[in-house]
Amino acid sequence: MIRAVLLDLLGVVYDGDTQIAGAAAAVERLRQAGLPLRFVSNTTRSTRRAIIAQLAGMGIKVADEELLTPARAAVDWLRRHGRQPHLLVHPDLEVEFSGLEGGSGRAVVVGDAGEAFNHASLNRAFRELIAGADFLALAINRTFKDADGLLSLDTGAFVAALEFASGRSPVVLGKPSPNFFRSALADLNCPAADAVMVGDDAESDVAGALSAGLGAALLVRTGKYRPGDETRFDPAPTALVDDLAAATDWIISHAAA
Amino acid sequence: MIRAVLLDLLGVVYDGDTQIAGAAAAVERLRQAGLPLRFVSNTTRSTRRAIIAQLAGMGIKVADEELLTPARAAVDWLRRHGRQPHLLVHPDLEVEFSGLEGGSGRAVVVGDAGEAFNHASLNRAFRELIAGADFLALAINRTFKDADGLLSLDTGAFVAALEFASGRSPVVLGKPSPNFFRSALADLNCPAADAVMVGDDAESDVAGALSAGLGAALLVRTGKYRPGDETRFDPAPTALVDDLAAATDWIISHAAA
Repeated sequence: MIRAVLLDLLGVVYDGDTQIAGAAAAVERLRQAGLPLRFVSNTTRSTRRAIIAQLAGMGIKVADEELLTPARAAVDWLRRHGRQPHLLVHPDLEVEFSGLEGGSGRAVVVGDAGEAFNHASLNRAFRELIAGADFLALAINRTFKDADGLLSLDTGAFVAALEFASGRSPVVLGKPSPNFFRSALADLNCPAADAVMVGDDAESDVAGALSAGLGAALLVRTGKYRPGDETRFDPAPTALVDDLAAATDWIISHAAA
Repeated sequence: MIRAVLLDLLGVVYDGDTQIAGAAAAVERLRQAGLPLRFVSNTTRSTRRAIIAQLAGMGIKVADEELLTPARAAVDWLRRHGRQPHLLVHPDLEVEFSGLEGGSGRAVVVGDAGEAFNHASLNRAFRELIAGADFLALAINRTFKDADGLLSLDTGAFVAALEFASGRSPVVLGKPSPNFFRSALADLNCPAADAVMVGDDAESDVAGALSAGLGAALLVRTGKYRPGDETRFDPAPTALVDDLAAATDWIISHAAA
């Protein structure tokens, strides 16, 4: 029986700047069913403020504690370990890492840097790694659906480049890290087995959530979904559904009364 | 008993624009011992003409057929398979791929593009791959010793990025591809077991040559060598020597009379 819902954002709730048809109404139905929600996004190009404002513009009100991002998890990690970040992230995201200058060592933080990924910036991060800096990956997604509708290289590709050259393995902070899913549920007092995840990434969202112990994970046919994704990764989705509206039907029919 | 010698260039014969001390004299001693030589380089930033001219400037005369480069192997592959290249290589190298426009399909060719590696160029190559283009890697080296004396990211890192995102595996044309070592020996009428490789890359040069069946592979302490490299990869070097001069002593003492 489902008691809590984790929702991916890009490709599930919106695509680019546009709501996916029926998404706001679906979120509202989940709220009216009394299900606590958490939005778990690997989008690492926007600040939390910008994401919450974007959702508000689509008629979806999200409280600060309902949004989990890898950047917040990274800041927690850096504070806990006393490290200064060497950032290889989108320029818009840098502000979220301010106030961490006092650390005793360094940690390379890789997010979706977009156009800021180039030979020089990757090489600087590589040299930090071989000099002994810690290695944090905000996400390891392979691809995302870009503004032109085609797939583009996501953070995971650049993390793989640094990993291959340095021989170092990253600490992954976003999905599919089990800790990321669990921390999303931590203040809901809900066992993982009673939660469902909805995503368009069969690997990071769906297989990741099931591996983290969630009771169910639904793959939507929106966003970056491509036919066959439902059989491409293990574990396979609990169900394949058209979109968030259909996922909501499934969830409400499986919810604790 | 050694009957033929394969020599790496960067880090063995020269570093940047400078001969490594004693290298020209060592090459001359190998020639006087009657040992046929092949220069097998993964350097993919320079044309064959430029490499031969650079060696001549150091007093080392190399005939065209003595130099094997991954670009030449790639051009052979593209001709044989009737493919047009989509190049992600150093701009200086593009000229070696002229005259291949008539192919029936496309192949992404990745070399050490240097500053030409950026988000846009990598993404264009990625999109070719997921659209079905073949995938050729001129090399998969992890690092090289850069002009400032520090290690930098080499081609293999960017190949790994494309491989991770596309789920495609490259055909590797340079070292450590067994075919590359074997083609270097093909016109020497020398069994692989009677040949020795000398290199500064314990993985690509040394383990690669031994895996390809060469009888011996010597690791030099020049170039990108870092202490401990001799135990980092399997198979381990036949011997660890100071430089090409010391390698030459070893080779001459093991040569067929």
